[in-house]
Amino acid sequence: MPDKSQSNIDKVLSNLAENEGAALERLFNFLRIPSVSTVSEFAPDCQKAAEWLAAQFEGLGFTASVRQTPGRPILVAHSDEAGPDAPRVLYYGHYDVQPADPEELWTSPAFEPVLVDGPVGKQIVARGAADDKGQVMIWIEAFRSWRAVMGKLPVRVTVLVEGEEETGSPSLKPFLKEYADELKADVAVISDGNMWDVESPSITTRLRGTVYTQIKLRTARCDLHSGLFGGVARNALNALTQLLGGLHDEQSRVQLPGFYDDVPELPDELARQWAALAFDEAALLSSFGLATPAGEVGRPALERLWSRPTADIHGIWGGYIGEGRKTVIPAEAQAKISFRVVAGQDPQRVVQCFRRFLDERRPADAQISLEVLGMEPGIEIPSDTRWMRAVRRALGDEYGKEAILGGCGGALPMVGALKGILGMDALLFSFGLDDDQVHSPNEKFELRCFRQGARAHARLLAELGRAV
Amino acid sequence: MPDKSQSNIDKVLSNLAENEGAALERLFNFLRIPSVSTVSEFAPDCQKAAEWLAAQFEGLGFTASVRQTPGRPILVAHSDEAGPDAPRVLYYGHYDVQPADPEELWTSPAFEPVLVDGPVGKQIVARGAADDKGQVMIWIEAFRSWRAVMGKLPVRVTVLVEGEEETGSPSLKPFLKEYADELKADVAVISDGNMWDVESPSITTRLRGTVYTQIKLRTARCDLHSGLFGGVARNALNALTQLLGGLHDEQSRVQLPGFYDDVPELPDELARQWAALAFDEAALLSSFGLATPAGEVGRPALERLWSRPTADIHGIWGGYIGEGRKTVIPAEAQAKISFRVVAGQDPQRVVQCFRRFLDERRPADAQISLEVLGMEPGIEIPSDTRWMRAVRRALGDEYGKEAILGGCGGALPMVGALKGILGMDALLFSFGLDDDQVHSPNEKFELRCFRQGARAHARLLAELGRAV
Repeated sequence: MPDKSQSNIDKVLSNLAENEGAALERLFNFLRIPSVSTVSEFAPDCQKAAEWLAAQFEGLGFTASVRQTPGRPILVAHSDEAGPDAPRVLYYGHYDVQPADPEELWTSPAFEPVLVDGPVGKQIVARGAADDKGQVMIWIEAFRSWRAVMGKLPVRVTVLVEGEEETGSPSLKPFLKEYADELKADVAVISDGNMWDVESPSITTRLRGTVYTQIKLRTARCDLHSGLFGGVARNALNALTQLLGGLHDEQSRVQLPGFYDDVPELPDELARQWAALAFDEAALLSSFGLATPAGEVGRPALERLWSRPTADIHGIWGGYIGEGRKTVIPAEAQAKISFRVVAGQDPQRVVQCFRRFLDERRPADAQISLEVLGMEPGIEIPSDTRWMRAVRRALGDEYGKEAILGGCGGALPMVGALKGILGMDALLFSFGLDDDQVHSPNEKFELRCFRQGARAHARLLAELGRAV
Repeated sequence: MPDKSQSNIDKVLSNLAENEGAALERLFNFLRIPSVSTVSEFAPDCQKAAEWLAAQFEGLGFTASVRQTPGRPILVAHSDEAGPDAPRVLYYGHYDVQPADPEELWTSPAFEPVLVDGPVGKQIVARGAADDKGQVMIWIEAFRSWRAVMGKLPVRVTVLVEGEEETGSPSLKPFLKEYADELKADVAVISDGNMWDVESPSITTRLRGTVYTQIKLRTARCDLHSGLFGGVARNALNALTQLLGGLHDEQSRVQLPGFYDDVPELPDELARQWAALAFDEAALLSSFGLATPAGEVGRPALERLWSRPTADIHGIWGGYIGEGRKTVIPAEAQAKISFRVVAGQDPQRVVQCFRRFLDERRPADAQISLEVLGMEPGIEIPSDTRWMRAVRRALGDEYGKEAILGGCGGALPMVGALKGILGMDALLFSFGLDDDQVHSPNEKFELRCFRQGARAHARLLAELGRAV
């Protein structure tokens, strides 16, 4: 048995290699669709991306449908050819991408994918190359080659690809509730994020959540002349910078009252495991043109990235930002501020902490309104299940070394929803790299990661078929 | 003699009253020209405004010409009908205006002037109504009525109306140097600013200058994902708010090293004079919807407005400011910041103080570039000259009370240039009010101020004619 399946998987891997050119063409077509979810004018492109995927799955013998939501549509597809006794696996991904701005910083247009030479081989450059279109196509190609060689998939597969991941997936939870019976599976598989490095596979067992807010600060009822009234009238920008300048102390600890109350310390064993990785923070920083670590002074880098909460200002605007000089005392200023939260922190309570921060430090004559644009809690995933063992074998065979049980600083709302609503664990293993510049100009996905990602997913199919 | 001139001035004042409707029509035509100087797309409108003025002065027997500069054109006109022995007076004003933005806050379009009812009578509402088109037209109308009644002006008049006052008058000094012989006069007259209140005339003997800067702060070489790298990568907006949040201490004293070194204390006599005005700061603040004074704690309001330097942030921008959420660590942020400076402070040295502030407080991994968009020193004007006495009489007769010798928080570059380049004093008396909302939406000029301003200027012509 092992030998036969071994030879089978080899055939599947060979088929992947033979068809890589065609696979890249398919990915490029997907990347050419500007399916930006944060800006409403791109809604038609999101619809188009979902329909493009539906066609892909129908071509693979799935029954596929594009389901409308209050926001962007969700693609659902099913394959039952493995028969009623085979386990059912839910594959999740997202077709939506971040805005391309600032577009002038792209070396080639964001939605015109190109192959360029990089330090570890060819790179696929386009918005969404790594986050997440490239990592959806790797398992689609694994399905394709498996079926080409073996005739049918070894497990029953349900696919859910959403279009609101970059906006906090507002429609996802209601959708999972409405279609719970249809979507329920034995386990979920997700590739959306980074691996440890191009040679070292990793499985994500913890994710930080997000509390995303926007504040507006008002002082006078209108803008005023800074010459005539400077020294008497309150300036909204002086006030806002004073307020937000106090978000962190000298140790870079977030100053929201009670912010750290529910933040658990990392278990010693995990702390040792992470320390053993000897993460080279200096190298990461220098790849960004930076030299000095930000975040809590005295904490190891991996804790600051994976198990500690943060506060970041994403955007700020107010006053006169046009050409030349305008001597005005602005009456209004706004900012987008988010907090990364970890398992244990209640997002609702973090909002209360921020309200207290704003109330206690509110400058004189400043009216502050707080809007919450989204909340997702932090998450931890159990690392020793039969399914997790299957993923470890698949990754171990592909890369010739044990997969790292790590964390991810970013949120994946789907993981929490799967557990909470469908009672399913998620197998989170991804193939992006830290320098892929997701959410930034010139996002890329290494061709090598695309190739080995597809191979690892093919190996997982074999393991899952065995794992009954 | 006194009696005759007295009856003459009465005739001139009557003529002003009879022609007020036509005068308002002329002002409205002037206000309809959107001569914004800070944004280059309005350059043609600045040319149009200068040409419109040239036609006005030609109609008054002046020789007028529109002179081109590297920036906006300057209108120059001469009237010598008073004869070679009459004193020569230089009238200065500016036809350029501030941008209308935020336009959505205007109750009527900024460049479609309207007469509306206000607490002290009709108000002229339009961008530039008070700053400075309305206050240029008052002396033009005084010329017109004087000539209608008396046949010719009592003094030789030179007129200079520039179009770069709102951008720091970059072309003015070179122009004054080039045409020094042509522009030289016995004294200058300027109406551009505010009077004490609608019933109390004032003469401005001190003006604050400006040091206007723009800074750019860079951290990483590109924007980064705040989930993947939050807690490790420096955030340009966290850094900028931290930096600018420290511009003032708890006493609202500007924290630039050495900023106050050359700031003189107010002479006791003047301090007493100003204290006697019993300035109602609370009323001014509440007219803006404010309750708590800004500026140096413990200083009287008029000192904070007239004789103390300040720091104001006029605009800030950076990161994602579009619709919805973008979880980005911005790599760049910018701000416009200016300092009001007083006589005694060297603008160059204030820039050095700001550089020191930025260097000493520079956050780790932050590269900061500083651009100086303009510098004008603070100014003091001697208050006891024959010309100043003439203005005091004219204002005293019109308003039935002594003019206040006050200050103005805003800069008038022309005043310093006149003294420095042509060796002339400026007679600075204006007719705007504190609530005119210059530089803000819904700028207005009281019809009563327009009327009495024209009458005061007619009276000044009589006094200047006597003052030979």
